[in-house]
Amino acid sequence: MSHNQLDQKSQAWSALFSEPMSDLVKRYTSSVFFDKRLWQADIAGSLAHAEMLAAQKVIGADDLASIQKGMAQITAEIEAGQFEWKLDLEDVHLNIEARLTQLVGDAGKRLHTGRSRNDQVATDVRLWLRGEIDLIAGLLTDLQKALVGIAEQNVDVILPGFTHLQVAQPVSFGHHMLAYVEMFARDAERMADVRRRVNRLPLGAAALAGTSYPLDRERVAKTLGMDEVCQNSLDAVSDRDFAIEFTAAASLAMVHISRFSEELILWMSQNFGFIKIADRFTTGSSIMPQKKNPDVPELARGKTGRVVGHLMGLITLMKGQPLAYNKDNQEDKEPLFDTVDTLKDTLRIFAEMVGGITVVPAAMEQAAARGYATATDLADYLVKKGLPFRDAHETVAHAVKAAQSHACDLSELPLTVLQGFHPAIEKDVFDVMSLRGSLEARSTLGGTAPSQVKAQIARHRARLG
Amino acid sequence: MSHNQLDQKSQAWSALFSEPMSDLVKRYTSSVFFDKRLWQADIAGSLAHAEMLAAQKVIGADDLASIQKGMAQITAEIEAGQFEWKLDLEDVHLNIEARLTQLVGDAGKRLHTGRSRNDQVATDVRLWLRGEIDLIAGLLTDLQKALVGIAEQNVDVILPGFTHLQVAQPVSFGHHMLAYVEMFARDAERMADVRRRVNRLPLGAAALAGTSYPLDRERVAKTLGMDEVCQNSLDAVSDRDFAIEFTAAASLAMVHISRFSEELILWMSQNFGFIKIADRFTTGSSIMPQKKNPDVPELARGKTGRVVGHLMGLITLMKGQPLAYNKDNQEDKEPLFDTVDTLKDTLRIFAEMVGGITVVPAAMEQAAARGYATATDLADYLVKKGLPFRDAHETVAHAVKAAQSHACDLSELPLTVLQGFHPAIEKDVFDVMSLRGSLEARSTLGGTAPSQVKAQIARHRARLG
Amino acid sequence: MSHNQLDQKSQAWSALFSEPMSDLVKRYTSSVFFDKRLWQADIAGSLAHAEMLAAQKVIGADDLASIQKGMAQITAEIEAGQFEWKLDLEDVHLNIEARLTQLVGDAGKRLHTGRSRNDQVATDVRLWLRGEIDLIAGLLTDLQKALVGIAEQNVDVILPGFTHLQVAQPVSFGHHMLAYVEMFARDAERMADVRRRVNRLPLGAAALAGTSYPLDRERVAKTLGMDEVCQNSLDAVSDRDFAIEFTAAASLAMVHISRFSEELILWMSQNFGFIKIADRFTTGSSIMPQKKNPDVPELARGKTGRVVGHLMGLITLMKGQPLAYNKDNQEDKEPLFDTVDTLKDTLRIFAEMVGGITVVPAAMEQAAARGYATATDLADYLVKKGLPFRDAHETVAHAVKAAQSHACDLSELPLTVLQGFHPAIEKDVFDVMSLRGSLEARSTLGGTAPSQVKAQIARHRARLG
Amino acid sequence: MSHNQLDQKSQAWSALFSEPMSDLVKRYTSSVFFDKRLWQADIAGSLAHAEMLAAQKVIGADDLASIQKGMAQITAEIEAGQFEWKLDLEDVHLNIEARLTQLVGDAGKRLHTGRSRNDQVATDVRLWLRGEIDLIAGLLTDLQKALVGIAEQNVDVILPGFTHLQVAQPVSFGHHMLAYVEMFARDAERMADVRRRVNRLPLGAAALAGTSYPLDRERVAKTLGMDEVCQNSLDAVSDRDFAIEFTAAASLAMVHISRFSEELILWMSQNFGFIKIADRFTTGSSIMPQKKNPDVPELARGKTGRVVGHLMGLITLMKGQPLAYNKDNQEDKEPLFDTVDTLKDTLRIFAEMVGGITVVPAAMEQAAARGYATATDLADYLVKKGLPFRDAHETVAHAVKAAQSHACDLSELPLTVLQGFHPAIEKDVFDVMSLRGSLEARSTLGGTAPSQVKAQIARHRARLG
Repeated sequence: MSHNQLDQKSQAWSALFSEPMSDLVKRYTSSVFFDKRLWQADIAGSLAHAEMLAAQKVIGADDLASIQKGMAQITAEIEAGQFEWKLDLEDVHLNIEARLTQLVGDAGKRLHTGRSRNDQVATDVRLWLRGEIDLIAGLLTDLQKALVGIAEQNVDVILPGFTHLQVAQPVSFGHHMLAYVEMFARDAERMADVRRRVNRLPLGAAALAGTSYPLDRERVAKTLGMDEVCQNSLDAVSDRDFAIEFTAAASLAMVHISRFSEELILWMSQNFGFIKIADRFTTGSSIMPQKKNPDVPELARGKTGRVVGHLMGLITLMKGQPLAYNKDNQEDKEPLFDTVDTLKDTLRIFAEMVGGITVVPAAMEQAAARGYATATDLADYLVKKGLPFRDAHETVAHAVKAAQSHACDLSELPLTVLQGFHPAIEKDVFDVMSLRGSLEARSTLGGTAPSQVKAQIARHRARLG
Repeated sequence: MSHNQLDQKSQAWSALFSEPMSDLVKRYTSSVFFDKRLWQADIAGSLAHAEMLAAQKVIGADDLASIQKGMAQITAEIEAGQFEWKLDLEDVHLNIEARLTQLVGDAGKRLHTGRSRNDQVATDVRLWLRGEIDLIAGLLTDLQKALVGIAEQNVDVILPGFTHLQVAQPVSFGHHMLAYVEMFARDAERMADVRRRVNRLPLGAAALAGTSYPLDRERVAKTLGMDEVCQNSLDAVSDRDFAIEFTAAASLAMVHISRFSEELILWMSQNFGFIKIADRFTTGSSIMPQKKNPDVPELARGKTGRVVGHLMGLITLMKGQPLAYNKDNQEDKEPLFDTVDTLKDTLRIFAEMVGGITVVPAAMEQAAARGYATATDLADYLVKKGLPFRDAHETVAHAVKAAQSHACDLSELPLTVLQGFHPAIEKDVFDVMSLRGSLEARSTLGGTAPSQVKAQIARHRARLG
Repeated sequence: MSHNQLDQKSQAWSALFSEPMSDLVKRYTSSVFFDKRLWQADIAGSLAHAEMLAAQKVIGADDLASIQKGMAQITAEIEAGQFEWKLDLEDVHLNIEARLTQLVGDAGKRLHTGRSRNDQVATDVRLWLRGEIDLIAGLLTDLQKALVGIAEQNVDVILPGFTHLQVAQPVSFGHHMLAYVEMFARDAERMADVRRRVNRLPLGAAALAGTSYPLDRERVAKTLGMDEVCQNSLDAVSDRDFAIEFTAAASLAMVHISRFSEELILWMSQNFGFIKIADRFTTGSSIMPQKKNPDVPELARGKTGRVVGHLMGLITLMKGQPLAYNKDNQEDKEPLFDTVDTLKDTLRIFAEMVGGITVVPAAMEQAAARGYATATDLADYLVKKGLPFRDAHETVAHAVKAAQSHACDLSELPLTVLQGFHPAIEKDVFDVMSLRGSLEARSTLGGTAPSQVKAQIARHRARLG
Repeated sequence: MSHNQLDQKSQAWSALFSEPMSDLVKRYTSSVFFDKRLWQADIAGSLAHAEMLAAQKVIGADDLASIQKGMAQITAEIEAGQFEWKLDLEDVHLNIEARLTQLVGDAGKRLHTGRSRNDQVATDVRLWLRGEIDLIAGLLTDLQKALVGIAEQNVDVILPGFTHLQVAQPVSFGHHMLAYVEMFARDAERMADVRRRVNRLPLGAAALAGTSYPLDRERVAKTLGMDEVCQNSLDAVSDRDFAIEFTAAASLAMVHISRFSEELILWMSQNFGFIKIADRFTTGSSIMPQKKNPDVPELARGKTGRVVGHLMGLITLMKGQPLAYNKDNQEDKEPLFDTVDTLKDTLRIFAEMVGGITVVPAAMEQAAARGYATATDLADYLVKKGLPFRDAHETVAHAVKAAQSHACDLSELPLTVLQGFHPAIEKDVFDVMSLRGSLEARSTLGGTAPSQVKAQIARHRARLG
């Protein structure tokens, strides 16, 4: 076996270089301490590449066998924590290739035939991200199931629905939970869309122009379970759309988490008191002995900024880059890794925390009663008696004003007083103005009536399996 | 007919309000001067709603006829520029409804039965955006066709492919153009994905809880050509995912435009001189008489920031909002409108400008020759002679160093000198080291070989119609 | 007089161009319909330039007189709305120069001597922005004064201070208002810092390299009231730091507005009921007759996203631009204009709205009493009796638990029960555990004690004049 | 000594909690593995606090002595890498306090008197950031000095100045380098401005309301070298302006780095060939043997996105938070830490890399000659002969057109041909149209004439020391 060029990287990149890289530069440009995370994808990609090279007679069967044996050993070493990652070898790719060549000699040096780190890293990141998207899809399902579960237990619990954080109309707590199921269902849809564009194979694009070896790229794609082959070599090595697209989808999921968090925090505040969260999800204060703080939703709300920041960073990174690969692209990894970690941790903890929510129906109903939540019902009642909606709306505004001056709810005004606002009002108006009457009336598709909410729960159960 | 409450909005919102809105507040909160742009969607949505209300017997057939007649007149007035938009009436919805009631009396007041501005505005924006996405899809097709056109004319023109803006390997100019076709094709895919989530009907969610009228939401969806009905009323009025998702897709399209622009600007720079752009796409200088500036790509590159800024603005807008509708959401429109306008204008002008590009093949080839673009080919040649790739790579580094010291290309070194680097080198090496030989060798799927490029062009032609 | 080249711009930029700019390009690249807003700065800059050119004998005294006369007429035309802005003339600069030349002939053509649009536009934007910063500084003062006013009226009103939106400790409503005074005071500091870097003169940098005319740049700076002259011509025309820096300062101000808005919205919610906002700052609902919505703070909270989006847009715009001027920079104006407008409108309406706030002290005190707000006071009491803080904290946690199980406040537990937690507790503990006792105890610098709050009010009054 | 409550945190926060925090929550909310970086600031703050408590007789002299002794030991343990950081103890503050109490008993429990983690963490971050700003200021000075150094060596080297990346006018390479000195000088100004607002003391605000202990906050400020005391306790614990402001300043610095990087990459590209960077700052390719890639400037350009992303993240974090402290704020640290690290590493490597630049004057001059860089000089020549500038500009456009058709420079046209464009042209025109003549003519303040550049260098030398 000839000498291993990668062993000498600490001296100089190649014969062309008159001096080694400065230590400052090595530390600045090296990615191995974060991209080693891609090692499984890197080895999987290399094995698929080697297997194809052998099938295409570019390397020998013995080379393939050596590579497979070497990679098995490297896998074992990494899993055992015994693999020595070297800064001098820049990245996960050269670290593994250098070790392979140490282990199996010239076969290791043949592995890089017909590929470049440019297509290799793009392949690694896509393979890794595909796996993570599948995990995220599972976590989104878990969270949706947890929400459907709490919805089912609380179909008949009445909460004041807010617009502008002002009491608007009574809604079912179950219905409210299902609003978040819709959001996380859309997140899952988006993740599936992103996955299609992630799951395409850049390998074979080589540095940027393709290669002169008779590669069978579709075979490699099939081995790796990829849907398609990237059709243009320049695009294959320079495209980072998939990272941005994923981070945009993750940002939306975090925006949903932030909205849910905002509500959990509000509802736990003493002035609402709508819910309690199990102690194991709260923390105390170093100074105030009475405190139980909703740290998890607050921190999750804060972490939204983190993921959005990564999205901004990735877009800024790609803006204005000429083709094909530029070193800037190395900066795609840390934001992507952190986005994946943050999203997974957050979804997991939310799925668990939802099960730790205790609702306080009395507090919710009391709050609903405080805000003339059924005023619209009175207007609708008048419409059914023949008034145009705008006139009914105006009539009820007068009634609300009167109730406010008596510091009572609409339903507490005597019938005769109500009739003073409109003669068509009869005794049955009090059914309409009850919280439950209001709730049950909203039974059109997507409405808050318990019958509708139950139908939606059934639909989600069927969908989520 | 009873009086028109909307006529009195300048006095007070309703009987509940003790004073009219301050003028400062009116100007701050009014949206009519930008959301009037939604008028067609607003009227279409109202007509579909009214038609369903009549079918469900919520309003009479005569009411429907009056509403249809009134809306026809309003359409005519707006198209003729004679409609008077009033700040006092806040937004496009109340402006149109107030005029309708002026024109047709109580029927106009009945239109708002079973809906709220919360579901109405969400419906309007979705209808409008769906139309714009369809236009954008068309423009993306136009741009791809223009790029395929210039690719087809330049399959055999050789450009130095760059990585790190250093000469890397020769590529076909046609191949390079097709890299952008891939990008814009992905943009079109994403737009189609977004469209599915845009084209869902919020109408019928009313303020936030659904409604007590027997609405047939699926009928309205069908009338409006929408794919689905939003299944949860709280989500229906508070969801702005679709706006963010669209703007994220638009940001990616602009990032692609920015990359293409960067390259056009480089290529037009005298130091490259690879292309000329027709004078009608350039501008001069107020001080330097010799200048022809690539204003269009520069401005497009700059406008990337604008669209990305809108994306960030929209995400910030939604972060941490409790359910359901909050006034914050009014701020979704201007960034969305400007994103649509910017993207459409940019795609249109690029589709046209691509046709105004003249390539300068001699400059490209000369540049390719300057950077040892075929060094990899020499390494591949040695691999085919049996060297492991890493050894071949090292051997060629020595050869390049020698050529540099003679200030000549690799292909200009005498055979004997080359053989000094490796005895396996024979006369046929010179074919391998020619730009054209290098190009033609990269004939695997997605590679730059003219045969591959032609196959890709045929694929795109078939796909784009 | 010779012919006016600018009249022919619709034909071609100059003799060098073989065809006129395409209409699509004209519309895409023209800035006149937004940058005409800079007309006063443009004319002021031109007059200062012309006056210096004459002083330096580059143009004649008669030329100067003609230019001054022409500019006076143009000013009158613009103010009267009679100036015809032309798309063909691209921007505010060429529009004004072309009209000047129409009016005064060759003198007009001499005005552009020794300058370029590159340094001209940078000068215009800086002059304009300086004026806007001064207006914003005034508005920040107005808002601070309004907040100090409401603080002064409510020094003794007790609000539950929150951390994690959980009741923490009683605070003075006046103290809470002064927290925002601190924020807006910092915004004013930042605006003053930005102003120093805005108020520097680029004019004289010409296109990018300086000029061969004997300009006296310091004279122009003095005429225009600028603090310094930009010292490097390349930097002078390409620098947009000042726009980014201003937008960053504006973003922080909007973040403060968003926090204040969030609190106003919470406090107006029926579950808090801490404040009312005058009807003229609220709006109703098109469907729910009982609603009074806090549209202004909600919209302001939403507009934060808008300004932050502009900041991100501007940074993206400048990232990676080579020197010196590029057309990308034209995109600096719209985000900057909109940032200024949004910030000014928002500050103005908030200064006014603060005066429309009515506080509901009973609701605040009731809320404070609900959350064991004085638990820390009990711990501090024990510390003063000799316990280490950590032990006191733990003891009080037990006491709170007991009070919770009796559904009463700490101060409602009998002395004997309290003494069961620690024997050092004596009768004076009840003073410590009252809301007012707690408030008054926090009298160190910056604390919430009324004495401190009054001292801070006095300091702010002195500072704000 | 009584038991150490912090030892039991793994069981429950306090007596109030019925169950310990879930492990998932612990990992999600714990910050110790990143905020331990603040340990020096945390100890410095604690010592200053304890020293003041003793001076105010809140704790005894013996307590202070114990605390000082304990902290000395903790310092030694951390420096020796022997301190055991515990996840259960959440953050740097509780880790250190728990160890202190282990070491010194009740005195350790007294340390937290009159403070909270809310004011403690704000103090720690400010102290730490102040130190980092001072280091950054030093690095900005180093980079400026390196740029002044290379400027001084290249005052007379002529580069084509570009606008729109089209050759514009000749500039001195030294002058071009000084443009970046201006940018980094502004960054230093901004850092100094930020420092003033960072260097204010929150300690003493306690949880949010101040404290009932007789603290002397100004004494603590003085001990810690802080300029001022935060004047409002609510603001003191909830303010993160300083982090955003710092990150905005850092983003601008990175934008400047990105612009410089863009130019270095362009200039190193074979089509420019204006400079070489020492091999120790470049890397090779795993596939292309001839490559030397400008990895450092590319990566730095990419890292701009990272810092801008952090800015976006931090703003999103703070948007809409109600007062006072919320757990969201814990998310301020990682982006801030990474911003500091990225900026410092980048400035350091650039200061070093600038010294490794070799200029290629011949390539620059050749490029300058290719683009009619002195056309403006010819126009100015005609102005000095009495033509209005606009007429001169038009005349020269004709001359350029003629030169282009002869494929020669303006200066290569015979005098008689030039006189055909205007009879005032005489033999001295050739001096004006030389690159050096053009350069030397631009001698006004800030211009590119060598005399000016030398004056600027002297100014910078004096300023930078």
